[in-house]
Amino acid sequence: MKKFNTSPISGMQELTPAKQALFDKLKNQIVGVYHSHGFLRIETPVIERTDILLAKAGGDTEKQIYKVVKTAETEDDADQALRFDHTVPLARYVVEHENDLTFPFKVTQSARNFRGERAQKGRFREFYQLDVDVIGREKLAVSYDADVIKTAYDALMTFIKPEMKIRISNRKILTGLLQELGLQTKSEDIFGIIDHAEKVPKEKTVSSFEEIGLSGAEIEKLTTFMNINGAREDVVSNLKSLGINNDIFILGVEELNNVLSLLEKQGLGETAIGDMLIIRGLDYYTGTVFETFLPEYREIGSICSGGRYENLASNYTDQNFPGVGASIGLTRLFQTLDDNNLLESIDKKSIDLVLIPFSENEYEYTFNLAEKLRGCGKTVDINLTDKKVGDKFTYAAKIAKFASVIGENEVKTGNIEVKDLETGNKLKLEDYIRSV
Amino acid sequence: MKKFNTSPISGMQELTPAKQALFDKLKNQIVGVYHSHGFLRIETPVIERTDILLAKAGGDTEKQIYKVVKTAETEDDADQALRFDHTVPLARYVVEHENDLTFPFKVTQSARNFRGERAQKGRFREFYQLDVDVIGREKLAVSYDADVIKTAYDALMTFIKPEMKIRISNRKILTGLLQELGLQTKSEDIFGIIDHAEKVPKEKTVSSFEEIGLSGAEIEKLTTFMNINGAREDVVSNLKSLGINNDIFILGVEELNNVLSLLEKQGLGETAIGDMLIIRGLDYYTGTVFETFLPEYREIGSICSGGRYENLASNYTDQNFPGVGASIGLTRLFQTLDDNNLLESIDKKSIDLVLIPFSENEYEYTFNLAEKLRGCGKTVDINLTDKKVGDKFTYAAKIAKFASVIGENEVKTGNIEVKDLETGNKLKLEDYIRSV
Repeated sequence: MKKFNTSPISGMQELTPAKQALFDKLKNQIVGVYHSHGFLRIETPVIERTDILLAKAGGDTEKQIYKVVKTAETEDDADQALRFDHTVPLARYVVEHENDLTFPFKVTQSARNFRGERAQKGRFREFYQLDVDVIGREKLAVSYDADVIKTAYDALMTFIKPEMKIRISNRKILTGLLQELGLQTKSEDIFGIIDHAEKVPKEKTVSSFEEIGLSGAEIEKLTTFMNINGAREDVVSNLKSLGINNDIFILGVEELNNVLSLLEKQGLGETAIGDMLIIRGLDYYTGTVFETFLPEYREIGSICSGGRYENLASNYTDQNFPGVGASIGLTRLFQTLDDNNLLESIDKKSIDLVLIPFSENEYEYTFNLAEKLRGCGKTVDINLTDKKVGDKFTYAAKIAKFASVIGENEVKTGNIEVKDLETGNKLKLEDYIRSV
Repeated sequence: MKKFNTSPISGMQELTPAKQALFDKLKNQIVGVYHSHGFLRIETPVIERTDILLAKAGGDTEKQIYKVVKTAETEDDADQALRFDHTVPLARYVVEHENDLTFPFKVTQSARNFRGERAQKGRFREFYQLDVDVIGREKLAVSYDADVIKTAYDALMTFIKPEMKIRISNRKILTGLLQELGLQTKSEDIFGIIDHAEKVPKEKTVSSFEEIGLSGAEIEKLTTFMNINGAREDVVSNLKSLGINNDIFILGVEELNNVLSLLEKQGLGETAIGDMLIIRGLDYYTGTVFETFLPEYREIGSICSGGRYENLASNYTDQNFPGVGASIGLTRLFQTLDDNNLLESIDKKSIDLVLIPFSENEYEYTFNLAEKLRGCGKTVDINLTDKKVGDKFTYAAKIAKFASVIGENEVKTGNIEVKDLETGNKLKLEDYIRSV
């Protein structure tokens, strides 16, 4: 009988061993692709000083941050809290370790972050973010925007089976457009309305524009702008045909053209498209912004997003560190793929072989055999219980693909039979070793 | 100019990318060996309900636990705190997911835990523990005690170069001895004094025994007991010659003999020894206890320890889950090995090759080449800055082993030269690909 509620706290993902093995596999694949593209892994503490975490934030972040209570032995420390993303700690890390880093600093982080959000389906309070960022010193070529997008795409390709669309915009375009229309003072509202446009009926978007006092002509211009999406040439020519003669607008279009063109050169001409509806909520982004969708599963939302920020660490230093990043929220993505049956069928049996010594007399021989097999790359468990051989097979069938009984005769002759626990087929040990 | 203190909080390990790469390598090697021995990985949330965490604890644990403040959106939740080890969450996990698990449940956890300890050298407030545990249902063969010790030893062997000694005892032996001497009521004190005996002069140990009222004869008996250590046969015969006719004592000696004998059969006859000074502080352990030392570096202390517990989850359920575990505290171990120059020389260059396109005209060719090389298992970065070729080589030399310039001619002819950034030697791309 249970004496306690032993469920994890609401909003925390806790997997069975079989699902954990699959989660780990996806995580390792992503991290492997990131590294193969030249990104160096770092790790920052989960606990940071609150003043560092909240130097910029405000809004939801401040409300959702988990503060940590100092203990009797740490009471001299500054106020502390759990990090809510990887970007703030990265900014601190770059300023702190600047002299140990080579710029452009291609960096990856893959760990859990924490947000005390209201519990709801698909939202997690503790969640893996697998990020790549490129940080420049003083300047950073826009080509790196394409680099992080391609890297994240290659990582997703290791396990995402449905078609992906990467929708890309550049915040300079809308910024320049609003300057040209004389709507700078309303830009925060307008960015917000466009950011939400896909989630509400069209009439709602129009009425939101009206509520902040836009004229019919202004609304029409914005609506035309918002409808621009598609292949590079189309998007660029449609943007140019808006006839906006503003430097920021022109630079934004040029950067977008550049990023899309670099992605084309890497075979993503069909996958990466321009789309003026992409805004990314955070005012933090200043150039390229992108989100990744599965058109056959639009309800899943973006599975990977990010963008360019002009200055990573402006709150902590006078120096200028422009950067660009992409992030995969694996905890939510894993759950969503699982809910939609889009995870590869889980191989519950991550153990290759269970050796079953008939009695303690065969332990020594079995230990040696296991060592030899592990040397060949096999994952080998030995059943050391004093149960009957039949029970040991039942155990093996639950966790492993193959099993072998090691009895007096096997020790004497060295002839060992390996049983396929799925098919019941038996093969010689030598053939089993060669088989994989 | 810095505007903030950007150092990590005291007691948190934060590594440069080169050291992080080495840390990750050791961690992955350990986790790989654990898995190859048939242990399944799980992950539990960092944040747990305080009542779960403190169901047993008390003492230091309660003082050092980091409580987490609920946010406006999580205020309905129970009180929460950060886990301080993997054992308590494992107990909760086993009770919660019992029906999804196969017993004996061979499980591994590899993540950071948190203790708000006073800041001091070699102690960390956030630290990796890489654990293996075997959990039985109702019973668990003592052979698994040897299984976790051998598994942890094999993991350490992947990177520990100095000789290791695994010192093993069994708490039943001292428990039985104290019963026989009629000293049960003083057993907590006596376990504590023996646990500290190596850290104080011999006279101090004797005077501590005197202070709790032991007679000269009793002290002599205990001193004789404490001096028993060495190879299996010696230890067992010395223990037997104490002439203690107590069931628990006899069972303890038998279990110790069994564990040491199983380790002998796996080639650890020299490495694994019996040693009655090994106690392990926690009253939690009930049978086998062990610690691992480097005799040439005694000051480092134990680098891996663990033991047998009769009941993992007694605080959460009436069911009986006996278990045995081993733990490597990698954060402290990494720091200690580094301080003693015992880490393998750090290869600062975890990137294989930097490709340097001469201009944007060569980007497309370079992207394709990078993709091909990544397919061959190479870690390939492309320098996309608009710097001069010389500056790009300087960048490459800091992070990578090789570099190649891709110019107009290379694109035309496909003849690509790969420069070894260490030796200056140049080789053909085809030879480079074949070389590793």
